[in-house]
Amino acid sequence: MNYQFSKSLEGFSSSAVREILKLTQGKSIISFAGGLPAEEYFPLAAVGEAFQRVLHRGKGALQYGLTEGYTPLRESISRRMAKKGIKVTPDEMLITTGSQQAIDLLTRIYIDPGDVILVERPTYLAALQVFQARGARIYSVDGDQDGLDLDDLAKKIALYKPKMIYVIPTFSNPTGKSWSTERRKGLLELCRKANVLILEDDPYGEIQFETDAQYPSILSLDEHPHGSCVVYTSTFSKTVAPALRTGWVIGAPSVIRNMTQAKQAADLHSSTLDQQTLYQLLEHFDLDAHIVAIRRHYGERMRMMAGLLKEQAWPGVTWNEPKGGMFFWVELPEHIRSDELLKQAVQEGVAFVPGASFYADSPKHNTMRMNYTHTDRESMELGMQRLAAAMQPYLMKI
Amino acid sequence: MNYQFSKSLEGFSSSAVREILKLTQGKSIISFAGGLPAEEYFPLAAVGEAFQRVLHRGKGALQYGLTEGYTPLRESISRRMAKKGIKVTPDEMLITTGSQQAIDLLTRIYIDPGDVILVERPTYLAALQVFQARGARIYSVDGDQDGLDLDDLAKKIALYKPKMIYVIPTFSNPTGKSWSTERRKGLLELCRKANVLILEDDPYGEIQFETDAQYPSILSLDEHPHGSCVVYTSTFSKTVAPALRTGWVIGAPSVIRNMTQAKQAADLHSSTLDQQTLYQLLEHFDLDAHIVAIRRHYGERMRMMAGLLKEQAWPGVTWNEPKGGMFFWVELPEHIRSDELLKQAVQEGVAFVPGASFYADSPKHNTMRMNYTHTDRESMELGMQRLAAAMQPYLMKI
Repeated sequence: MNYQFSKSLEGFSSSAVREILKLTQGKSIISFAGGLPAEEYFPLAAVGEAFQRVLHRGKGALQYGLTEGYTPLRESISRRMAKKGIKVTPDEMLITTGSQQAIDLLTRIYIDPGDVILVERPTYLAALQVFQARGARIYSVDGDQDGLDLDDLAKKIALYKPKMIYVIPTFSNPTGKSWSTERRKGLLELCRKANVLILEDDPYGEIQFETDAQYPSILSLDEHPHGSCVVYTSTFSKTVAPALRTGWVIGAPSVIRNMTQAKQAADLHSSTLDQQTLYQLLEHFDLDAHIVAIRRHYGERMRMMAGLLKEQAWPGVTWNEPKGGMFFWVELPEHIRSDELLKQAVQEGVAFVPGASFYADSPKHNTMRMNYTHTDRESMELGMQRLAAAMQPYLMKI
Repeated sequence: MNYQFSKSLEGFSSSAVREILKLTQGKSIISFAGGLPAEEYFPLAAVGEAFQRVLHRGKGALQYGLTEGYTPLRESISRRMAKKGIKVTPDEMLITTGSQQAIDLLTRIYIDPGDVILVERPTYLAALQVFQARGARIYSVDGDQDGLDLDDLAKKIALYKPKMIYVIPTFSNPTGKSWSTERRKGLLELCRKANVLILEDDPYGEIQFETDAQYPSILSLDEHPHGSCVVYTSTFSKTVAPALRTGWVIGAPSVIRNMTQAKQAADLHSSTLDQQTLYQLLEHFDLDAHIVAIRRHYGERMRMMAGLLKEQAWPGVTWNEPKGGMFFWVELPEHIRSDELLKQAVQEGVAFVPGASFYADSPKHNTMRMNYTHTDRESMELGMQRLAAAMQPYLMKI
């Protein structure tokens, strides 16, 4: 058989990272690479109890469910969203297999090959993969610590006539940064004027280290709730556990209706067992108290990594302390390619993600993403020593 | 906001069935429409025990998993497949969110808009939706009780140069029929010669009412296992329970590799909680004995419906007793449109699926699909009386 794959496969970027990380298999590697939450903080007992409650509902709990998602779970999420200033009715919400599927479904119903999508510079690499596979033209918009550069955004809207913009305004992957409220409002204004749909990806918004700071979602700032130019997605992967693969997406009824139809063709519906378990968990477990605990734990780990980076005091290496989320974004001196450094690092027994993969265009090869949530103190210290050993030959060239 | 949806949405057929079935909401309808298994036979206790075993593995059970699927589950399925004469290594298998996702992922990596897909006449409607949404040109091939008409297949391969053919050779949805081994071999030969990929969808193969009959999967007949022109998919939705949304797909390593990459963009991976639960269930529960029991129960229900249809003795109405699966395919006299009949039936309090939705082209409007697995004796008798009442005015016109 001579397989003739779709031309769209040419759009799939072969992940250099995956190739390099394959080298780690079978080795005792300390990984700052993945975006994994800490297993030791998963509410295992609560998940077990919630599952028992589902089983007590009887055999009907194992039947097919609605494509839209388990109704009591959607109602429960609506109540959580209301506390964030987002008013949403059940026909404005769809349950997805993680927020990744929300990105994919929206792209399928809204984007045609050749359409333009704007993204942050840098941005989440698996969103780039979805957009590339769809044959979209992708351009990145500059930004700084306060969010997207609104002048550059205005320029690129005028130049490229984008159909959609994809943003992670709160504790971004990969940079960890958070936009100011002003930038959020500015984005909304420019996009509404130009009829650009905003896909607001918010997997990390709950993982916030400061107690007083306010990061309103862009959707909550939109005053046109029924013709909103914002589609918002989030997930329980970081607050409860990834294994349940449950996310949700909020948008105008017509957007959600089309996404639901696309989901019906894609997989009929997400696991109803997981959805019912999450619903029972939300009803009988204090998730907000659990999130407070996670924030404290992850905040500690973030400060631990910040301390270790400071100790190393590598010349020409910079980073910012994130105010939430799961990542440090590190800039190396310009002559160091982080993909080259990774090969050395893997030899030493430590891994990270080279930053170039997170760019839609003109990648900065001297950047890297480091996760701090999945490593305890001992491993983090050892990992940093190994990274220092890998870095040594490069720093000597300065 | 003026939403500008993708042109591909024009390919989504708005489901007339869904619209009609909306009329049933809030009414006490007996439904022969859905393809639902019987809840009363779900192995609820075994699922509960399996889940407990997963939790005993510790918090790591709640972490992110491989896109390819939980490795022990893939190994377990491989062992089951071997008993069916299908030899498969882990890199030839991908776990999916039901077999529906396997259809979608294969279409995404193998089909470009304008490519031709052949299908049976009639065939599974949610597969047609996937192919339509992709912008494929779809043509149907004639068939009889023994399977696809090989002459018509040869003619249509020559005429349309298809890239793929989609078939459900064992206890088809919607017709309930099973192909002879000869037709399976004939399909394989013609497709191999013309380089046409075969997507073999096998959700019902295990639900077999005769004890002696052999229905070899087309994949098991292919003598080119490593360059196979068959991609095979099945699911646990009918043998264990739909809520776990776990299916699998088997194909050549290059096909599976590309599908895995597409799945990574689509949803990263399916629920690992469900996958681990199924693995534990396969290890500690006698699924084969459970399947024997399901076959007996569903065989009884099939014969019950056959008896009721015979009793009615509607003039000009024909059907065949299925040898497995979940459906009767009923042909009405030519002057009766089943979508019209459905409106009447819903008024009487009974539902079925009009057959026209299952045709890629030239639909036969005088056909209907009736499910027998989800209704007990009492409901089935009452439902058939209601259907008879709905049918009455039509039959009087003969």
